Amino acid sequence: MKDEFARIAAYFAPLAGEEGRGLRDDAAVLRPPPGREMVLSVDQMLEGVHFFKTDDPALIAAKLLRRNLSDLAAMGAQALGYLLTTALPADVDDAWLARFSSGLARDQAQYGIRLMGGDSSSSLHGIALSATIIGHVAPGQALGRQGAAVGDGIWVTGTIGDAALGLAARRGKLPDPTGVLTNRSLLPEPRLGLALAGIVSAAIDVSDGLVQDLGHLCEGACLRGVIRADLVPASAAAAACGLEMLETRLTGGDDYELLLAVPPGNGEALRAACGDLPVTRIGVFQPGAGVHVIDDNEQIITFAKPGWRHF
Amino acid sequence: MKDEFARIAAYFAPLAGEEGRGLRDDAAVLRPPPGREMVLSVDQMLEGVHFFKTDDPALIAAKLLRRNLSDLAAMGAQALGYLLTTALPADVDDAWLARFSSGLARDQAQYGIRLMGGDSSSSLHGIALSATIIGHVAPGQALGRQGAAVGDGIWVTGTIGDAALGLAARRGKLPDPTGVLTNRSLLPEPRLGLALAGIVSAAIDVSDGLVQDLGHLCEGACLRGVIRADLVPASAAAAACGLEMLETRLTGGDDYELLLAVPPGNGEALRAACGDLPVTRIGVFQPGAGVHVIDDNEQIITFAKPGWRHF
Repeated sequence: MKDEFARIAAYFAPLAGEEGRGLRDDAAVLRPPPGREMVLSVDQMLEGVHFFKTDDPALIAAKLLRRNLSDLAAMGAQALGYLLTTALPADVDDAWLARFSSGLARDQAQYGIRLMGGDSSSSLHGIALSATIIGHVAPGQALGRQGAAVGDGIWVTGTIGDAALGLAARRGKLPDPTGVLTNRSLLPEPRLGLALAGIVSAAIDVSDGLVQDLGHLCEGACLRGVIRADLVPASAAAAACGLEMLETRLTGGDDYELLLAVPPGNGEALRAACGDLPVTRIGVFQPGAGVHVIDDNEQIITFAKPGWRHF
Repeated sequence: MKDEFARIAAYFAPLAGEEGRGLRDDAAVLRPPPGREMVLSVDQMLEGVHFFKTDDPALIAAKLLRRNLSDLAAMGAQALGYLLTTALPADVDDAWLARFSSGLARDQAQYGIRLMGGDSSSSLHGIALSATIIGHVAPGQALGRQGAAVGDGIWVTGTIGDAALGLAARRGKLPDPTGVLTNRSLLPEPRLGLALAGIVSAAIDVSDGLVQDLGHLCEGACLRGVIRADLVPASAAAAACGLEMLETRLTGGDDYELLLAVPPGNGEALRAACGDLPVTRIGVFQPGAGVHVIDDNEQIITFAKPGWRHF
């Protein structure tokens, strides 16, 4: 088994961009893209909380990067690179690290990003990982959670609920004959590269569950969000799970779709900006507070728990 | 006990600078200082590895920030702010968080930095923390580990070994009647603000132990570093521990002093740049490889373990 520095040299230094200085210095040095603002976010993943120890390390790596990339997507930003922390218990071997770094390498190529630095530590209990993502945006063009206005439509990209159903399937609570749901839970697709500035009034990524994340847009605007459950787009695999999984779909996390506030009249521009990615109007912002989920008779549907929170 | 969002609002949002957007968005947005390069680093601290559960949370917070600030000091950079991750088990209460955030607030004021964003998670086992520090430097002026040349002096700021002795004292293995050693172990002082560009040829902060960190400067330059043990500056409290603690002092971590390569003739400029902070020449770079610690008869002193590594 390699020691700390040999592991860095073998598994991480090959991933480093020039900002990372071969991972031999105390910090990364980055020349900001001229005339741009920097966008920075950090997300962590812990064994037993965000992933299972038996998950493929390459998929853990990909999800770590993609959750962070999704935060950039929600801000309308472009990605440059990332810093990585790993805290590993003694039973994590070099094969695990080799597979983990291969997952990083694949997504670095896919998203055009590079490793810029990081920190490695031992851990007494379980694997702890974090990535700090570094991106950029045109000045003043960053999207935010606070701009929704009365009458703005509530839109989502893609389909909602697959990841939560996939987690249930991985726990043996649901069939997933095609594997689509499981795959969605393990390997999200951040919605990067959509030119949404000037089209949407607010944006967030659906990481903690549609209802809860819509709640953040409502709080940001001091408005009520009203969505029709039957309009929330479902994949074929999710639809096959039936209506009894509605709460799981609407409150479960890890979709990493974008949830958008869109002023009336901007729907076509939004569709054009999203290209091949489906985007669906599921509701509207009204005066008031909180999230109302209604059925097609306008009756309010209540859920036991709106979404994921950590304590 | 507050839930996740109430904790963010109560303990962390008051620490946020404008880049943090009230900690309500998916990412921080930062306008880079004009004409500067960005310097980024991340360091983590885990319960049982980097601190004890019974440590004062305000001191844990301070050490988390200061370890990161020390990385900026080693690069010759100025600090702007930081992102924070917390992973907390269920038995960490609001009082712990209140005390932790008070430690952050105090050091934010001391070092002129602000919180820009972060991520909070539950943890199944133990507290895990990380901070991503964000700083800046004049273009091309970042210090590094790779510039030492044959004949450059090896210099250190301050005194070496107090923190490792303090850790031994906290474990009951040493007396520490004045508390100086313990304090040094709990509350390091990053050596920020020294104008070292053009004076030193390489720099690193002493975080993993003097011998091991000097080894990084040697590897960076493909040279041998030779230091005289009796020249390595000791505080009065460390000197009182006697010569039998020499290995602990020279190989123990957490000093956060700067270790510098200084071309001949730059010593006076270095002293001037360091002002009231003592700086001491302890050795010289020679052709070869590795670190040699010698006594005042030029005999090599060998140690069982050169410094801290995580696995």
